[in-house]
Amino acid sequence: MVEKSLNELAEFTGGRVKGDGSVLISGVASLKDARPGSLSFFVDRRFEGELAVTKASALIVDKPTSLFGGPQLAAENPLLAFAKIATLFAPPPKRYPGVSDDASVDGTAELGSDISIYPGVFVGARAKIGDRVILYPGVFVGERASIGSDTLVYPNVTIMNGVEIGSRVILHAGVVLGSDGFGFVRDGASSFKIPQLGTVRIEDDVEIGANCCIDRAAFGETVIGRGVKMDNLIQVGHNVVIGQDSILVAQVGISGSVRVGRQVVLGGQVGIADHLEIGDRAMVGSQSGIAKSVPPGDVVSGTPAIPHRRWLRASSLTARLPDLVDRIKKLERGFAELRAAVRHEDKERKV
Amino acid sequence: MVEKSLNELAEFTGGRVKGDGSVLISGVASLKDARPGSLSFFVDRRFEGELAVTKASALIVDKPTSLFGGPQLAAENPLLAFAKIATLFAPPPKRYPGVSDDASVDGTAELGSDISIYPGVFVGARAKIGDRVILYPGVFVGERASIGSDTLVYPNVTIMNGVEIGSRVILHAGVVLGSDGFGFVRDGASSFKIPQLGTVRIEDDVEIGANCCIDRAAFGETVIGRGVKMDNLIQVGHNVVIGQDSILVAQVGISGSVRVGRQVVLGGQVGIADHLEIGDRAMVGSQSGIAKSVPPGDVVSGTPAIPHRRWLRASSLTARLPDLVDRIKKLERGFAELRAAVRHEDKERKV
Amino acid sequence: MVEKSLNELAEFTGGRVKGDGSVLISGVASLKDARPGSLSFFVDRRFEGELAVTKASALIVDKPTSLFGGPQLAAENPLLAFAKIATLFAPPPKRYPGVSDDASVDGTAELGSDISIYPGVFVGARAKIGDRVILYPGVFVGERASIGSDTLVYPNVTIMNGVEIGSRVILHAGVVLGSDGFGFVRDGASSFKIPQLGTVRIEDDVEIGANCCIDRAAFGETVIGRGVKMDNLIQVGHNVVIGQDSILVAQVGISGSVRVGRQVVLGGQVGIADHLEIGDRAMVGSQSGIAKSVPPGDVVSGTPAIPHRRWLRASSLTARLPDLVDRIKKLERGFAELRAAVRHEDKERKV
Repeated sequence: MVEKSLNELAEFTGGRVKGDGSVLISGVASLKDARPGSLSFFVDRRFEGELAVTKASALIVDKPTSLFGGPQLAAENPLLAFAKIATLFAPPPKRYPGVSDDASVDGTAELGSDISIYPGVFVGARAKIGDRVILYPGVFVGERASIGSDTLVYPNVTIMNGVEIGSRVILHAGVVLGSDGFGFVRDGASSFKIPQLGTVRIEDDVEIGANCCIDRAAFGETVIGRGVKMDNLIQVGHNVVIGQDSILVAQVGISGSVRVGRQVVLGGQVGIADHLEIGDRAMVGSQSGIAKSVPPGDVVSGTPAIPHRRWLRASSLTARLPDLVDRIKKLERGFAELRAAVRHEDKERKV
Repeated sequence: MVEKSLNELAEFTGGRVKGDGSVLISGVASLKDARPGSLSFFVDRRFEGELAVTKASALIVDKPTSLFGGPQLAAENPLLAFAKIATLFAPPPKRYPGVSDDASVDGTAELGSDISIYPGVFVGARAKIGDRVILYPGVFVGERASIGSDTLVYPNVTIMNGVEIGSRVILHAGVVLGSDGFGFVRDGASSFKIPQLGTVRIEDDVEIGANCCIDRAAFGETVIGRGVKMDNLIQVGHNVVIGQDSILVAQVGISGSVRVGRQVVLGGQVGIADHLEIGDRAMVGSQSGIAKSVPPGDVVSGTPAIPHRRWLRASSLTARLPDLVDRIKKLERGFAELRAAVRHEDKERKV
Repeated sequence: MVEKSLNELAEFTGGRVKGDGSVLISGVASLKDARPGSLSFFVDRRFEGELAVTKASALIVDKPTSLFGGPQLAAENPLLAFAKIATLFAPPPKRYPGVSDDASVDGTAELGSDISIYPGVFVGARAKIGDRVILYPGVFVGERASIGSDTLVYPNVTIMNGVEIGSRVILHAGVVLGSDGFGFVRDGASSFKIPQLGTVRIEDDVEIGANCCIDRAAFGETVIGRGVKMDNLIQVGHNVVIGQDSILVAQVGISGSVRVGRQVVLGGQVGIADHLEIGDRAMVGSQSGIAKSVPPGDVVSGTPAIPHRRWLRASSLTARLPDLVDRIKKLERGFAELRAAVRHEDKERKV
């Protein structure tokens, strides 16, 4: 069991301790789940009530609170400090010792040092597996595919031929990399398949959620940039390029040849039509349908997407359309009466 | 081959026989597909035409019909009676006899009696497999994961470390349980991973559709309550709790820390934003986007969701917006003319 | 390495050569990626700039362009010609030589000639595997399932018991065929499972994208018609029938018993409610929600869907709702003033 004093943790993350910094911490937990030895986390006033009853030995806070009697570590970015400390206590991923006899590893594959290859893994000819890579059961690594060092590949992931994966990448279970792009050309009534001759490149420090699919390019590469984080069940079409540090929430669908910039955030279930560009730092609200390119920094929502604030107003008005129609009807009636009245007067006067 | 008389089936389900109850039934089928020996099902008047030509030996009905000459079993809930009877004739799931030599089962795993472990299964250290559990090829069961009795796990399912699964659960092919929740904190331009230290708990009698993903909690548990039924390709984020007997249609996406009540129905492709609450027995229409909590019993639709009846009206009006704009234009023109006319008169009189 | 002269390629596809037809072609590539020996493709004037710098040895064009100095092949359908030629140069799928000793193939399975069964494949009793079929690692083929000749099954695909697959079918990684349909009947508060006794039939020349799910029928068959092309992460419910040569873009969801006609196009993330009919050659815009049947040839969009042109107009007006409300308010104010003025005059005159 790892144990660290609060002072040591403050030194590690850069915060300031209020109270007894010698208290020993053996794990992290929410206020509710904390036990003696736990370091917990408090920044949201909605959870003030839990401070009186938490069993946590210490807190990470943005500024010290008088509602908790124990020692506190005040950090500039408390959630980041908490995440870094949690990493110290997180159990390391389990490693199979070496290459299982029940794996199928081609003799021409290049294997790094300290790798873990579980039973039921397949590694094809001339594939490259970097140092300390872990391949869980059911992983398929196609011919000439390459995987950088310290990459973690969970069970039943499929990495097709020639796909390139960087270092410190995490691929959750069921991910498919390098399936054919969806490219067909009409030939009479039927569809003729356009061979998909390109590949997929995943840069360093990317994390890809369970059952995501990333298609290979028709030519060239589909690219997931350094530090991109993808939630589960996301579809990325052929020739898409996603810029560094972008964040994609679950069930997003990106059509072929889209270019997503850096530090973009795509909300859950967003769909993007083909060949569009999403500028750096743009944000797209959940379920939006993007039918034209989004300039850098814009915040948009809706189908088709419009500026987010405008969408908020427009969609609340959509709900009030029945009232608007009533108001239009009332105007029409009132107007007809008034016009009749005016004409009547007119006649009377003329008479 | 199983054979039962209609009288026996009536006793089994509680219905009442009209006609010859001694007829032997050897299977169930739709009116169209029925063969001699088949029991079929009729409640929907739209299918009256098929009664004249069906080869079924008997019918389950809500009330006896004169359009069918053979024996009939009238049941209060005919579809339920039909489903129960169909269960009698359904082929039992295939069982591998014991534990395959081509599976990798850790020596410290606890194995129940009469289990079936197919080739290509992996069971990690200290995992618990209950009595009569079936693990199909390609299933991964991580360390300390536990599976209750009579649970059925179809091919290529991934059950990550520590996940708890109840009894009589059905996991369809490609399901992923216990992948990391999508938790990151910004660290400058890049995203720092928040370790996901919790787990997933699946209660008894749950069914989870193919390629669904259920993430482990950051702390504590993601919970799928007893009797919940989930269709295919559904995303459930970390720390979500779904109440008993709720029904989730395909491709639903539920963000982190959402609480779904009991007997809730979520239509296909619904998305729910994080930390919301969906009250007991609420119903959410297909493709809706839930951006605020839904009270118990409410029926809502749309993005953002509003009461379903209102949404029906509002969305039909949305389609008529071009007409509404024309009416507004006409009012504006008419009003401008009328005002001009009134002012003119006014002037005339004043002159 | 395959090498063909441009004249040979023109004969193969039916086009007309301008310039030196004896030039040897060893591959296809985009204008940007082309190397000497590459045949490239030019029809879109937006890429004119690349003609000056491309290293391609020859072009396929709709009509010859003076901006490229090398030989050109003018074809009536240049993309189709290009796709056909690309097929000549595409590397053939890798074949495992025969049946791996590390696969589990039931002794009663019928195996065709020249098949490839990789390690980690499972083939159940009485399954039929056609000539030249390739089953990649992690593929599960259930009892009595059948696969036609020249069908390609990528890693970790699950084909449940009894499913029938035609010839020249491509199943991308993670596909699930024949999971249970989502059929339950309420039994008090809980849901009683309706046994799903039917199957799935995939006709010839179908391609199904990664991680798609196709449920078996309650009775009878779920059918994917000849030549249908499905992108990734698509859900097809029980008893659905999809007509020949239809195209389904990624993340589409089709509820139970829907009938999709021939040559239909469903955009990405479309949802279709149960028991509806989508007529031949209909087109449904991305993210649309189909709540009633669509006649043959119609082009619809939106939720609920309306004619596409009308939807374009209505959705642009939705974005302008705030302005419309301002116009209604202005009318109301103006009208109230005018009416007051008219009544005032009226009174004055009557006085």
